[in-house]
Amino acid sequence: MPLTPDQLAEIEQQRAKPRPTLRQTVPALEALLYRPVPVLDHGFIRVIDYMGDDAAIVQAARVSYGRGTRKVSEDAGLIRYLMRHRHTTPFEMCAIKFHVKLPIFVARQWIRHRTASVNEYSARYSILDREFYVPDVDYLKTRRAERRIRRAEAHGQPDLFPDVGPLQPRHTAAQAIGNRQGRAEVLPADEAAQVLRWIKEEAARSYTIYTKLLNEDPKGTVLDANRQGVARELARMVLPANIYTQWYWKIDLHNLLHFLELRADAHAQYEIRAYAEAMLETVAVWVPLVHQAFLDYRLGAVNVSAPMLAVLRRMLAGERVEQPESRLSKREFSELKAALEQGVSGEV
Amino acid sequence: MPLTPDQLAEIEQQRAKPRPTLRQTVPALEALLYRPVPVLDHGFIRVIDYMGDDAAIVQAARVSYGRGTRKVSEDAGLIRYLMRHRHTTPFEMCAIKFHVKLPIFVARQWIRHRTASVNEYSARYSILDREFYVPDVDYLKTRRAERRIRRAEAHGQPDLFPDVGPLQPRHTAAQAIGNRQGRAEVLPADEAAQVLRWIKEEAARSYTIYTKLLNEDPKGTVLDANRQGVARELARMVLPANIYTQWYWKIDLHNLLHFLELRADAHAQYEIRAYAEAMLETVAVWVPLVHQAFLDYRLGAVNVSAPMLAVLRRMLAGERVEQPESRLSKREFSELKAALEQGVSGEV
Amino acid sequence: MPLTPDQLAEIEQQRAKPRPTLRQTVPALEALLYRPVPVLDHGFIRVIDYMGDDAAIVQAARVSYGRGTRKVSEDAGLIRYLMRHRHTTPFEMCAIKFHVKLPIFVARQWIRHRTASVNEYSARYSILDREFYVPDVDYLKTRRAERRIRRAEAHGQPDLFPDVGPLQPRHTAAQAIGNRQGRAEVLPADEAAQVLRWIKEEAARSYTIYTKLLNEDPKGTVLDANRQGVARELARMVLPANIYTQWYWKIDLHNLLHFLELRADAHAQYEIRAYAEAMLETVAVWVPLVHQAFLDYRLGAVNVSAPMLAVLRRMLAGERVEQPESRLSKREFSELKAALEQGVSGEV
Amino acid sequence: MPLTPDQLAEIEQQRAKPRPTLRQTVPALEALLYRPVPVLDHGFIRVIDYMGDDAAIVQAARVSYGRGTRKVSEDAGLIRYLMRHRHTTPFEMCAIKFHVKLPIFVARQWIRHRTASVNEYSARYSILDREFYVPDVDYLKTRRAERRIRRAEAHGQPDLFPDVGPLQPRHTAAQAIGNRQGRAEVLPADEAAQVLRWIKEEAARSYTIYTKLLNEDPKGTVLDANRQGVARELARMVLPANIYTQWYWKIDLHNLLHFLELRADAHAQYEIRAYAEAMLETVAVWVPLVHQAFLDYRLGAVNVSAPMLAVLRRMLAGERVEQPESRLSKREFSELKAALEQGVSGEV
Repeated sequence: MPLTPDQLAEIEQQRAKPRPTLRQTVPALEALLYRPVPVLDHGFIRVIDYMGDDAAIVQAARVSYGRGTRKVSEDAGLIRYLMRHRHTTPFEMCAIKFHVKLPIFVARQWIRHRTASVNEYSARYSILDREFYVPDVDYLKTRRAERRIRRAEAHGQPDLFPDVGPLQPRHTAAQAIGNRQGRAEVLPADEAAQVLRWIKEEAARSYTIYTKLLNEDPKGTVLDANRQGVARELARMVLPANIYTQWYWKIDLHNLLHFLELRADAHAQYEIRAYAEAMLETVAVWVPLVHQAFLDYRLGAVNVSAPMLAVLRRMLAGERVEQPESRLSKREFSELKAALEQGVSGEV
Repeated sequence: MPLTPDQLAEIEQQRAKPRPTLRQTVPALEALLYRPVPVLDHGFIRVIDYMGDDAAIVQAARVSYGRGTRKVSEDAGLIRYLMRHRHTTPFEMCAIKFHVKLPIFVARQWIRHRTASVNEYSARYSILDREFYVPDVDYLKTRRAERRIRRAEAHGQPDLFPDVGPLQPRHTAAQAIGNRQGRAEVLPADEAAQVLRWIKEEAARSYTIYTKLLNEDPKGTVLDANRQGVARELARMVLPANIYTQWYWKIDLHNLLHFLELRADAHAQYEIRAYAEAMLETVAVWVPLVHQAFLDYRLGAVNVSAPMLAVLRRMLAGERVEQPESRLSKREFSELKAALEQGVSGEV
Repeated sequence: MPLTPDQLAEIEQQRAKPRPTLRQTVPALEALLYRPVPVLDHGFIRVIDYMGDDAAIVQAARVSYGRGTRKVSEDAGLIRYLMRHRHTTPFEMCAIKFHVKLPIFVARQWIRHRTASVNEYSARYSILDREFYVPDVDYLKTRRAERRIRRAEAHGQPDLFPDVGPLQPRHTAAQAIGNRQGRAEVLPADEAAQVLRWIKEEAARSYTIYTKLLNEDPKGTVLDANRQGVARELARMVLPANIYTQWYWKIDLHNLLHFLELRADAHAQYEIRAYAEAMLETVAVWVPLVHQAFLDYRLGAVNVSAPMLAVLRRMLAGERVEQPESRLSKREFSELKAALEQGVSGEV
Repeated sequence: MPLTPDQLAEIEQQRAKPRPTLRQTVPALEALLYRPVPVLDHGFIRVIDYMGDDAAIVQAARVSYGRGTRKVSEDAGLIRYLMRHRHTTPFEMCAIKFHVKLPIFVARQWIRHRTASVNEYSARYSILDREFYVPDVDYLKTRRAERRIRRAEAHGQPDLFPDVGPLQPRHTAAQAIGNRQGRAEVLPADEAAQVLRWIKEEAARSYTIYTKLLNEDPKGTVLDANRQGVARELARMVLPANIYTQWYWKIDLHNLLHFLELRADAHAQYEIRAYAEAMLETVAVWVPLVHQAFLDYRLGAVNVSAPMLAVLRRMLAGERVEQPESRLSKREFSELKAALEQGVSGEV
């Protein structure tokens, strides 16, 4: 359970008293406010605060004095125009603040996005809870699957790039989310059971060492009166990357969409994608016009390079083009073919 | 008048219907929402939206699940602690959005602060109104005064530094705002009258050329049917730096305080300081605990350098220290003396 | 002439003494170092310093200990991979510093890019030179041309968006640079002559007022011993937006490419595009592998949206699709057609 | 040993061939280029590239055409002026790139500084080496010491703030570096031995599980032909926070100084401070004028708040002020006393 009954009660207490405001509100998002959306086994995201709505973007783009009397269809048109033409600054006028609970190895990928404000729970000043991420058997990706993907991506250039996560073709984003990965790509049941046992045992053992180093059990009882214990800032060094941490994370809408474009993508690691997907649903509730434009012009779009365009023109002229004479690499050619295949992007 | 009756009516219409929200609100700031605060002769600032309050900073610093039941005095203590120890990230958790009308030469200084989101009214796509900043006679600073200040600041290194605006000693911030500059520092009445005449004439003339280039008067009437007019993006090039522009400006509280530390400072040019002062009052209404901590630890504080500290210790030991044996430059020595004089910082 | 003989001599003197370094160097860029490349009538860009080369990007992506012994073809492959998959951080490992002289209205567009470091010559502390941008007759775009473009872009939503500059379809980038705009889009000769006269007269007049306000001519002679003159920070307010300013501008390669993607685009205003084009040539000299990848995957690429993809698939299946049944707006449909037309992107 | 003989050889090979450049060089920094400076037990920093020197800051501040003929004393004066008056943009004109090897828990603090460019070695794509940070017995801080410090800092508000690291009073920065912490603050020998045994055992055990999950030993040999192994991106989750990672880190001088002000401070955790201290020495070699100004106006300076100033004035007037009537909190009063004590800042 990601939250204790006490914490849930505190949240509902916060929701008990609506206040009047002259700011714009989004009733559908208010309905979600403060409440946790579970992600992975012990994680969650929850919206703590927000600023702006679809109309705020239009208002900023027009630098206008009021909300005007325009129709929704006009607002939608302008938002789609801004999204297509990458006029990004109006989207910066909206902001959202999340409270997120997540494993440290996910946090390490996440923090690479520098255009957000973060306050993380401090293992230097506090003792971390005994909560570790243990994958579901359906997501125990094999090394062979990893190698195959890597090979397809890099054509002989494995292991070269830093941990930002590849991101294209974006049109396949989200396709694996929700359903299991292909059967062939996850560990068979018996090896999976062994792997999960190892992960759990290692978590338990490291946490025991952590308490021994602190010389204090989770309830604050001293373990050995003859020892002093080491400082929290040092004891934490034995904890593994699947222990949960949490933070407040505030970001403007433009930068949130950029984050989602990278992390709700099929190439992102499953664990961070799970958070991105939950956030994408929040965006749909908060700014529905922006959300649709984002699906059409970002997540569901394909960046067709100049060499790809040349091939496309030959195809449209009726020519049958194969990779060898396409002047595209194998990888690029197969990306183009995939993008042009019926149905793929329809899933987004 | 900075706003037309129509615009004011539109603003009051926006204020007519409070809505329920579960977010935190600041009633005192709600009372100001959307309404313009006049600055200079035609400018204004007005708050369009805000996120967070004093308690949001505390909550983020604690990464907590609710608002807690702490007393105001504890919140104040933590906020002061965070301010003193430059734990800046919790202050990023609050944000505010202003609509600002300002002369272009002020906008050019302002935009140097890169950690904000801006949407400016576009002279590329729209025709600018015929509104120019003309200084009040009380603020027509003389060249002699400017030279004196510059000399005092730089000791023989005039004209060397870019237009960021010097900022220390901060403890004198705001002292000249509200009251006139010293009599000796502004132009005598007759020269002032001549100067204002020149500025006004130049504004009128340049605007006339602007309309001629556009081949269109402000009401949209074509001036000469035989001419085509040049594009707006070109015509604007003849407009001077005192014409008014406007923008939406969104910034988090941490970066707003940094802006105010530089621009509400006595060394900032009067015209931008006038905006900073108006914003500082907004901060007092919005986050009063932060405001007080900011006055105590930033605007009213002095950065005492290592060499200054050495002098201070000698003074406290009863020694009478003069500049020549202080190992401080004349400028630094006089800054130290000024900071230590009774009463100066009391004004902040 | 953008630079005086004295300044040119000072530059050549800086170039006189090569020094040994263990850092990587780019001899082709060294050949350009410090020397001004003229832009517009009085402007220029010149490279003051640089850090890194194509190989530095590869090295950072690999987090390696040395430069390795890989072949150029492998480096090119990795750089193209990084560009396609938007692994942007390795490109941040290179940086370049320009000295730029440019009209203020161009500077105002330029400064909107916040991810650079800027030191601008200060009109608060210094007196600006009497140099104004006066367009060439071939670039006096008419209002009608502006309206036509705007209408085509926005389909009835003119004047709505802030001054960021539209940016797509990117495949037509640069096409108008170098050659004149179409004859029909610039002013006829007689109106052009009148317009240039007005611009020049206005520039001269405003500069005269500027000197009167300062009570000092450009050589420093006092104009009227009975007047004091106003402070520089105030006098500058009468100067129009086509006066030249200058700055040092340092930016990393990733953010430079983003700037160029927006500003070397056919939709950018000609005057800023002229600077972007000059910088794009610098990039070609500095990091040729990155430059080619940038042309293929950014400037020459098209972002095909999800709805466009659906149309494309129908076309490839042999269907003849017209706009009404395409579910695309007229504007989007015509963009798609343009992108697919032979030859367009070949110009890039 | 942080680097293998092969890696060291590759580094010396890079140093073998100086090239001519017209850029400015810093011979003293060239002497260090590429070579690792050891930090902690297996870590290092090494300079990979740099841009600019002391004079580049002056040149940017003046927006000048050449290097000029000014004397060093004038450059020093301007740099000190810029530092005192927080004209930060000229310092952004210099940049440096480090290759750093560091434990993950240090990396997690470090990455909070968002104004740098980072490429980290990827545990998603690569297998991490079996190298763990094990503290020296002299740095095994006790919990009691941690509690005492925390209490002194927060006066009853422990555990409230995120992991940014407190930073004041800055004048005591660096004092604990180099020498051991006080005897009373580290574990006694027998408990220390036990603690180190636990840390080492846990490291060994987790790495063994890591290889089992991968089903591959460090040399690439398959461990069990009947198992497939899990993907690298998953296996890494069992590795603890004291395993070493590495990255390329590029930052401009202004932001580097800000990092050092926070991380070379006595309140920063010892392990990150060790890296900051090594970098501070690099700054001294690279830009000696900036380094001295930084010591005087930042690291060695004290921010004296408005309430502190009031007390100081009373003291200078000969009054004997005690905490109760000072209107300062106990904590602030003792900070002020400490700052004014002879000799403290002389150590910086």
